[in-house]
Amino acid sequence: MRKLVTIVAVSVILLGIASTAQHLRAQSTAAADDKAAIRALYTDWNNAFMKKDVDKIMSFYAPDMFAFDAVPPREYPTWAAYKKDFQTFLGMFPGPITSTINELNITVVGTVAYTRSIGDGTYGNADGTKAHMVVRITDVLRKSAGKWRIVQEHVSFPVDPTTGKADMLSKP
Amino acid sequence: MRKLVTIVAVSVILLGIASTAQHLRAQSTAAADDKAAIRALYTDWNNAFMKKDVDKIMSFYAPDMFAFDAVPPREYPTWAAYKKDFQTFLGMFPGPITSTINELNITVVGTVAYTRSIGDGTYGNADGTKAHMVVRITDVLRKSAGKWRIVQEHVSFPVDPTTGKADMLSKP
Repeated sequence: MRKLVTIVAVSVILLGIASTAQHLRAQSTAAADDKAAIRALYTDWNNAFMKKDVDKIMSFYAPDMFAFDAVPPREYPTWAAYKKDFQTFLGMFPGPITSTINELNITVVGTVAYTRSIGDGTYGNADGTKAHMVVRITDVLRKSAGKWRIVQEHVSFPVDPTTGKADMLSKP
Repeated sequence: MRKLVTIVAVSVILLGIASTAQHLRAQSTAAADDKAAIRALYTDWNNAFMKKDVDKIMSFYAPDMFAFDAVPPREYPTWAAYKKDFQTFLGMFPGPITSTINELNITVVGTVAYTRSIGDGTYGNADGTKAHMVVRITDVLRKSAGKWRIVQEHVSFPVDPTTGKADMLSKP
């Protein structure tokens, strides 16, 4: 009887260790998959941005999202407000847009992720000239029903506080 | 024997329900406690900021933090760089500082939290005049050893992209 108890106890411990190891392996694989999914989201976002496809762009944001954008007003408290912001902004540039997302850094913690990146874009003006702008981007994403969506975004230029002038082409 | 099995099965189910309910209660209490702790962090941060106590300010940031600040350069990739940024910025204003953190919105998900807020401050210049600045703030915080610390910060002014001029007193 004592032997049986020992065997059962040891088995339970071994099962526990195996289960924990498997759990940790599964977690680390999941985190790698999540990072890949989020990286793909930024690639898709950037392609939609260059195509000026606002509906596609907005598909990457959660319905209850909030944004501080590079441009006024101070805050875009709803998905609809942010959609209008993209329409207005992209409407300013009738020419082609080129854009790259650089220095993308992704941290995943379960069903939450946060990122930072640099958006480097050229925007075709009506007269054929191009505007060049570099922005800093911070995002928070949540995973829901297997899909990652941006829930909070902050885009900006650094500003000289003594002159109020932004550096539209900021460097590290 | 069948009766015993039924009793054991029902007991296990009831224990499971009780344990889940207790777990959910504990989680919700923990989230409320975490929100209160993070709210207190912002109060303490703001008091330290008004006192120009850079060491105290920096105690609210994790050692591996990263920041996009309102002022150039583009990024502050280390704790040490951000400390120097606070020293430089606060050094610009020999007069008193008043500051409030408004519209603070906190979301806690386990050991990660993200916030947004508006920092409204007046900064005493050497000639007795005051500079007034309103910034948008996004933070990501992580809980480690029971303490919440800011791991990623983004502070900015909205900027008119056609003029490159920041709105230093932006309104919602």
